[in-house]
Amino acid sequence: MVSSYPKTRALCAPAGTRKSLLPGIAVLSERNESKGRLIMLRIPYTDVLKVLLRVLLKLGFEQKRAALSARLFAEASRDGIYSHGLNRFPQYLRMIQSGIIVVNAEPEMVKTFGSLERWDGKSGPGNLNAYQCMARAIALSRERGIGCVALANTNHWMRGGSYGWQAVDAGVIGICWTNTLANLPPWGASDPRAGNNPLIIAVPRPKGHVVLDMAMSQFSYGALAAYRMRGEQLPVDGGFDTAGQFTRDPAAIETSKRALPIGYWKGSGLALMLDLLAALLSGGLATHQIPADSERETNLSQVFIALDPAPMEQAGTLDRLADEIVEHFQSSVTGGERVRYPGERVLQTRTENLAKGIPVEPAIWREIQQLDFAL
Amino acid sequence: MVSSYPKTRALCAPAGTRKSLLPGIAVLSERNESKGRLIMLRIPYTDVLKVLLRVLLKLGFEQKRAALSARLFAEASRDGIYSHGLNRFPQYLRMIQSGIIVVNAEPEMVKTFGSLERWDGKSGPGNLNAYQCMARAIALSRERGIGCVALANTNHWMRGGSYGWQAVDAGVIGICWTNTLANLPPWGASDPRAGNNPLIIAVPRPKGHVVLDMAMSQFSYGALAAYRMRGEQLPVDGGFDTAGQFTRDPAAIETSKRALPIGYWKGSGLALMLDLLAALLSGGLATHQIPADSERETNLSQVFIALDPAPMEQAGTLDRLADEIVEHFQSSVTGGERVRYPGERVLQTRTENLAKGIPVEPAIWREIQQLDFAL
Repeated sequence: MVSSYPKTRALCAPAGTRKSLLPGIAVLSERNESKGRLIMLRIPYTDVLKVLLRVLLKLGFEQKRAALSARLFAEASRDGIYSHGLNRFPQYLRMIQSGIIVVNAEPEMVKTFGSLERWDGKSGPGNLNAYQCMARAIALSRERGIGCVALANTNHWMRGGSYGWQAVDAGVIGICWTNTLANLPPWGASDPRAGNNPLIIAVPRPKGHVVLDMAMSQFSYGALAAYRMRGEQLPVDGGFDTAGQFTRDPAAIETSKRALPIGYWKGSGLALMLDLLAALLSGGLATHQIPADSERETNLSQVFIALDPAPMEQAGTLDRLADEIVEHFQSSVTGGERVRYPGERVLQTRTENLAKGIPVEPAIWREIQQLDFAL
Repeated sequence: MVSSYPKTRALCAPAGTRKSLLPGIAVLSERNESKGRLIMLRIPYTDVLKVLLRVLLKLGFEQKRAALSARLFAEASRDGIYSHGLNRFPQYLRMIQSGIIVVNAEPEMVKTFGSLERWDGKSGPGNLNAYQCMARAIALSRERGIGCVALANTNHWMRGGSYGWQAVDAGVIGICWTNTLANLPPWGASDPRAGNNPLIIAVPRPKGHVVLDMAMSQFSYGALAAYRMRGEQLPVDGGFDTAGQFTRDPAAIETSKRALPIGYWKGSGLALMLDLLAALLSGGLATHQIPADSERETNLSQVFIALDPAPMEQAGTLDRLADEIVEHFQSSVTGGERVRYPGERVLQTRTENLAKGIPVEPAIWREIQQLDFAL
């Protein structure tokens, strides 16, 4: 039965130990994966945090902002979202150095209409802007049941799921999305005119929050690269080859740059809607106005919605219902692996990575170390 | 290049003329499609409305409610959504006669928390309840920028897109979704534990509203039947056969009842999130609590959100931006057909059907006529 989950995040396993190149930072383990093609380091979570914080402080971040940004990066890798955790940190630094990201610019509310607000991100760090806007949406939801903050002129928010987890950790429902540069061909087209706009929906549940964090392409380019490096085919079609045929060959899609939207015409349409909503609600730029170069991708538009139904219900009722829904979903008949709910694997990976150390690619770790020394 | 749009709605074309079985109602045309397998009637829009209204009045609907319900059904068929237009009308009547749908029950606000409201649908007609709740969300958005109405204890809303069009026709953004009975296997499972929960996102645009109306399965069972009757394979995999292999054979999926969620694990997760949100926000039932029989599917939970960014912007600015976004999306390079935006085909079909008459399957028309005579 063709029904397994993709293995894009199964990057690491424990092995020997090794000395860190960085003084005071222990490397717990590494391993040689898939015929020697990948060797991953495992660094204790607190050490990762320490290094990231030090680098950000050297770049001029205020103490609190450096701590939050370091935490958001470290948590992404801790939770298994390596592509938007430490792997993305060097680019974040390059974009600070090139002036795209303005280190201490803080977002500002520019317009308000009831429970809908517009904020200007002022080219500040995307993760800090997003965190502050979700915090504001959460505060609005606690006063008015629902709050919506639309943010213009911001930068890449790194891991979108961060702001979903932020909402559910605060006990409310969180929904957010961002537009991106044009990097996904609409259905029927061969050139990338849609954004791969990630959508996050998060529902609090004491037994394990339910957090969907999905972009509009079936596989991210990070996932395609991981499959290629493992020498594996995709479990389902992931795009077109250069001849315009569906393919499961990750390298063929990397070459054609024609990744497939989820659900073909449906994901293509959804990507358009998310861009329309983000730009119209925030008054910011749309995908076609954003520089089509990931090192210059800026002035993004984002939307943060929080909802707080709890005051309308007796304590515990919603938690019990959420449990029931998830349990019923997971009790499905399968040929093997149990059905997973969105966010479930994050918790498993988090536990494992906190115990064994955060997996980091050696090249990325080296780059961060070099920056730390050079700054 | 594998990139065409599905042909599920290409059901009708003009042909000869024929007398209606119903006095005073003209049948404009019919045609013999695809080797005689389908013959469609074309009835003038006003005549369709007249017949539906008469039937609903006989069933005890108050005048205004009968008119609105008749209009929503007729508009669905007018816009090419035949499966949730007249095709669904006989079942609507059966569910009224069996007492599942309470003809004149009106929804009532039961709890409110700022811009978030809970309404009780009281088992009223799903389309009328949904229309009233979207109207309330629109009113809230005009006062407070955003409004969210969560509705419990309602019935099937028929065409979900109706309430998206309602919002954009009122000049605001509309987002709504419903849960359903369990009719879609989660990714990795073989039994239907998820709902095929439709999601509607609608953005107003004077040159043509952009309205996404999509369920969580790649193809609806109505679409599968249409492909099978035309003797065609699906353009992409639509589900599993009984051996658990991906298939493009519509009949094989009808047999296995294993339709594919859009984006495999992604649509499966999204279906779960929409059910969680609908049940938790409304305090109503979740998919696993809804009778798994379409003739007894009731006590659904739905969410209606409206957003009105217009007062935060100079007149015309948002319209121009929406036009630009859509034009850029549509200017993609293709091998043939132009890229479509969500809702574009609806407008084309609407124009054609208003000119040529509303396509109705003869069996459905006969059933409606018999009900009209019998009541």
